[in-house]
Amino acid sequence: MSSTENGAEASARETGRPSPKVPERPHPVTLREVAEAAGVSTATVSLVVNKKKDARIAEETRRRVTDAIRTLGYRPNAMAKTLVSGTSKFIGLVADGVATTPFAGQIIHGAQDEAWKHGYALLIANTEGNGELEQDAIAMMLEYKVRGILYSTWFHRQTDIPPPLREADFVLVNCFSNEQGARAVVPDEVQGGRSATELLLAHGHRRIAFINATIPAPAKDGRLAGYRQALGNAGIPFDPDLVMEAYPDQEGGYRATAGLLQRGAPAVFCYNDRMAMGLYDGLREHGLAIPGDVAVVGFDNQEVIAAHLRPPLSTVALPHYELGAAGVRVLLGIDPAPGGPAKIHCPAVERASVQVQAHA
Amino acid sequence: MSSTENGAEASARETGRPSPKVPERPHPVTLREVAEAAGVSTATVSLVVNKKKDARIAEETRRRVTDAIRTLGYRPNAMAKTLVSGTSKFIGLVADGVATTPFAGQIIHGAQDEAWKHGYALLIANTEGNGELEQDAIAMMLEYKVRGILYSTWFHRQTDIPPPLREADFVLVNCFSNEQGARAVVPDEVQGGRSATELLLAHGHRRIAFINATIPAPAKDGRLAGYRQALGNAGIPFDPDLVMEAYPDQEGGYRATAGLLQRGAPAVFCYNDRMAMGLYDGLREHGLAIPGDVAVVGFDNQEVIAAHLRPPLSTVALPHYELGAAGVRVLLGIDPAPGGPAKIHCPAVERASVQVQAHA
Repeated sequence: MSSTENGAEASARETGRPSPKVPERPHPVTLREVAEAAGVSTATVSLVVNKKKDARIAEETRRRVTDAIRTLGYRPNAMAKTLVSGTSKFIGLVADGVATTPFAGQIIHGAQDEAWKHGYALLIANTEGNGELEQDAIAMMLEYKVRGILYSTWFHRQTDIPPPLREADFVLVNCFSNEQGARAVVPDEVQGGRSATELLLAHGHRRIAFINATIPAPAKDGRLAGYRQALGNAGIPFDPDLVMEAYPDQEGGYRATAGLLQRGAPAVFCYNDRMAMGLYDGLREHGLAIPGDVAVVGFDNQEVIAAHLRPPLSTVALPHYELGAAGVRVLLGIDPAPGGPAKIHCPAVERASVQVQAHA
Repeated sequence: MSSTENGAEASARETGRPSPKVPERPHPVTLREVAEAAGVSTATVSLVVNKKKDARIAEETRRRVTDAIRTLGYRPNAMAKTLVSGTSKFIGLVADGVATTPFAGQIIHGAQDEAWKHGYALLIANTEGNGELEQDAIAMMLEYKVRGILYSTWFHRQTDIPPPLREADFVLVNCFSNEQGARAVVPDEVQGGRSATELLLAHGHRRIAFINATIPAPAKDGRLAGYRQALGNAGIPFDPDLVMEAYPDQEGGYRATAGLLQRGAPAVFCYNDRMAMGLYDGLREHGLAIPGDVAVVGFDNQEVIAAHLRPPLSTVALPHYELGAAGVRVLLGIDPAPGGPAKIHCPAVERASVQVQAHA
């Protein structure tokens, strides 16, 4: 292997197949060519392509046209159809970082699956929170006559509605506005916090700490409310001393270790999985076993992390896929828009970081 | 706080602002309304909107039209423009999972930034590797007369060229074909493997293990070739016994710990960051310190992981952003297409998991 050859080339060569040349691209087939092949006028082809139901065309003629379309590989011009109908088969998705942020990308996946199901394609613009880019992206979508726009944020938060968005039919996804009538779908943080706490309650724990985030967010308020609800439902009085706060990443979780040990709680619900990952490191440094000494639950079900910690982390999933899909359904009027933001269920995912305890 | 109220509502309320109703969406402004406001014919407005340079229109008239467009908020119909010009200002991006896979989403970010720079918007279809969806996505893009298509994969691999893709001007991104003339941009795995090994060499290590992947891939061959080059350049003979293989995730890295300790190498290059993360756990269980006892380097610079391990992990970054941007430049003919796939540099990122050793 020569010093400049890379694996890609080596791998291509190793298949042993010849290297055919990519053929010249054929010129696009025109409506006129279809008409000539079928022996009909271009007007007739146009009527067949645009599926005009009231046009009277003999079945035999229609068949000749569709055969010619298939044989020649004719692609109808979607732009021309749009001019006739006034709206395109596009749904716009404006994202402030969804496409490029680990995990929130599932919003795209869910929105696309649901859009395709109803004959729409997704036109995505990722703005990285740049206001000017956002204006341009929405203007572009309006010029392409989108059916509507999903406006999404990579973390759950309140948002202002950018003025050009008001020109479209729109739904907020993973964010919400305080304007009445602004349709939105958001994760159900309260239910998620309740489910996370219940994972620990179900294993006999009654003294459960909560390491919340330092940063104000609907997730911070909602998960705390859910934690309190779960304790209340189990008849356990709320002890504010068991609620700590830390920066919501690995370093924050690591630094929270000492405070947790001071409180002596044998079970802890962490605001997110990254925090739990840092706490794992801290607990190990103190020679403590998970879940034997401390049972740990996270939040997010963050891919590449939660299932791969040692031990694997019990957590609650953020329903990104379902947020995208529900956004499309609300936009198209398939799901009714509730009075406030529609709240999407956050499912619990149980793994080895919690454990049955006979008498806790 | 009532038991059903969630953080979102609480947060909206706490702003103290009134809840204005989202206003009725205005009907779209028509060409005719612009013409009436400007006191000109619709044909004149059309000439101004479509920027026909050879049309003779008095400067004063042109100004009246552009004023009316601004005042009324008229949006020209991009579809109509496309019908005239034959191609749209879209670049298609077909992804088998880029949009929904952590980290590879930066391909979208890079492609979009570069596309916007040249006046193009990105039309993204995520196929999750579903062949039928892929065919439909490419057909849709062809119907919308895209300028060209980027065909991308979430991990670097060889690919077949789907037949409908040949109808478009296309560039393969993060994948390549053995067909001559198929333009492609891929990460420079050999250079990356060399840089990873050099991070350890620079700190005085001469006995460096490499835990490669078990799964065949250009990355596997390329990174091994780079490791060998770096050793060769440093005058260190290649010792095949120092090359191990493991499944490229945390569990694989953890299980490789015993084999690594048997070989007694004080420095190791792991095929990827996830493997390094598992190896961290294994080394800790043996009471070994990083980098004091074993220096560790990964590959990928995987967000949410590499920078947040304890200690933070030295690694080599996969250039996803640059792959997307370079794909657009090759498509538009701004970057020349080399004979084979264009190889994109993988930059080294040094953190605390390697260490200066005076005499290794």
